[in-house]
Amino acid sequence: MKIFDRPGFPNPARIRIVLAEKGLDQQIEFVSVDLIGAEHKQAEFLAKNPSGVLPVLQLDDGTYISESTAITEYLDNLDGNPRLTGRTPKEKAMIHMMQRRAEADLLDAVGIYFHHATPGLGAALQAFKSPDWESRRQWGERQREVALNGMRYFDTVLTSSPFVAGDTFSLADITVFAGLMFADVAGISSTDGYAALNAWRAKVAEIPSVKNRSGQQFEPDDLRRLGF
Amino acid sequence: MKIFDRPGFPNPARIRIVLAEKGLDQQIEFVSVDLIGAEHKQAEFLAKNPSGVLPVLQLDDGTYISESTAITEYLDNLDGNPRLTGRTPKEKAMIHMMQRRAEADLLDAVGIYFHHATPGLGAALQAFKSPDWESRRQWGERQREVALNGMRYFDTVLTSSPFVAGDTFSLADITVFAGLMFADVAGISSTDGYAALNAWRAKVAEIPSVKNRSGQQFEPDDLRRLGF
Ligand SMILES: N[C@@H](CCC(=O)N[C@@H](CS)C(=O)NCC(=O)O)C(=O)O
Ligand SMILES: N[C@@H](CCC(=O)N[C@@H](CS)C(=O)NCC(=O)O)C(=O)O
Repeated sequence: MKIFDRPGFPNPARIRIVLAEKGLDQQIEFVSVDLIGAEHKQAEFLAKNPSGVLPVLQLDDGTYISESTAITEYLDNLDGNPRLTGRTPKEKAMIHMMQRRAEADLLDAVGIYFHHATPGLGAALQAFKSPDWESRRQWGERQREVALNGMRYFDTVLTSSPFVAGDTFSLADITVFAGLMFADVAGISSTDGYAALNAWRAKVAEIPSVKNRSGQQFEPDDLRRLGF
Repeated sequence: MKIFDRPGFPNPARIRIVLAEKGLDQQIEFVSVDLIGAEHKQAEFLAKNPSGVLPVLQLDDGTYISESTAITEYLDNLDGNPRLTGRTPKEKAMIHMMQRRAEADLLDAVGIYFHHATPGLGAALQAFKSPDWESRRQWGERQREVALNGMRYFDTVLTSSPFVAGDTFSLADITVFAGLMFADVAGISSTDGYAALNAWRAKVAEIPSVKNRSGQQFEPDDLRRLGF
């Protein structure tokens, strides 16, 4: 199996955590795609994922799987013990519900803000976005509010639940964790005052698959190109 | 089990089809929520689904499940034969990938267009949307283009595949079918010229769970209120 991704970016980080959780990180080949250089908007990459985003999993039979949820379903079910996506109908339902909320209300909202209301990944990529900057900027700003409301929502959830979708660490936690990682990079205000969310984040950061931070840090050269 | 929904609306229709596919439609109680009257934005409904959208499944233990994908995971796994969401890791991955594309590139894109670039469901609901009409309208118009590109993409997929995510009817087909239903209501231009998409649509319309059209038609009073 191969993963096309880039270290430090939030959706790739989701899959790096899943691979470590499932003990698959040693068996996979990573292929780096230059997001800042807009390599993912070129024909060669679009043939792998027409949505033009990372990560993408390539199976040994050549099939390409994109969308982090779909990749997680694949990797989590390989050993017949899908504890990240749920074993019972109710677990599966809770995890998919919370994971979808974590995308719409946090991770993807931060992404829209970052790519539309800020310079995002820079000039090479902006050339592939629509030119009507003002309406994009306004929609991006509204998604910043969506993300802030999302943080408040997950703080409330975590007040009465140890993990985002119940009693165990799951796909939904990974999505919220990636959402907060991205919010930090995008400069979306901190989660001060969200005691339950912050305590959960500190706890998740200590889980071995998360703690080793494999692929969760940007390459030095990418940081320089992003102006950090 | 109870389903909170409204006949005729596209996301509720997804679950009506799943219930019929799984032979569960006689065992469920349907509770109608007045979307046009914005009943789903009131506290009583928001306690069931803080996202304020339909459908919602209530389990016998009281748990509320929202998000059509999550509800489908629940219903499809009850009998231990999840043919709508996939039995093998690869089937699950393909179905979740295509279903996610069907939401982002078609169903949800049509929804954003309908609710933001048109009067949508009317005055009661618009009061719950942001007032900056012009940037909403522009973003909605761009989502109309996303939906048109999505139709072209699924036409291409269906040129070489009998169903959206492979050889059998799945959650991904249901989402695309609901997306086309919604596009019709929203007045998004027809799929003329998309031979594969149209042939697939005609074929899916003949599948018994789809053909009985349970819950796929608006109540006459809702049609009148929507000005049709
Ligand atoms: N829904 C996708 C989102 C993937 C995504 O947005 N990836 C980012 C990297 S974190 C990307 O490739 N962005 C490039 C772009 O938007 O141009 C998933 O779940 O994998
Ligand atoms: N992602 C949700 C979408 C649900 C949704 O948007 N439902 C529509 C009815 S088709 C709704 O309740 N719209 C009301 C509104 O947007 O105010 C799902 O998969 O169920």
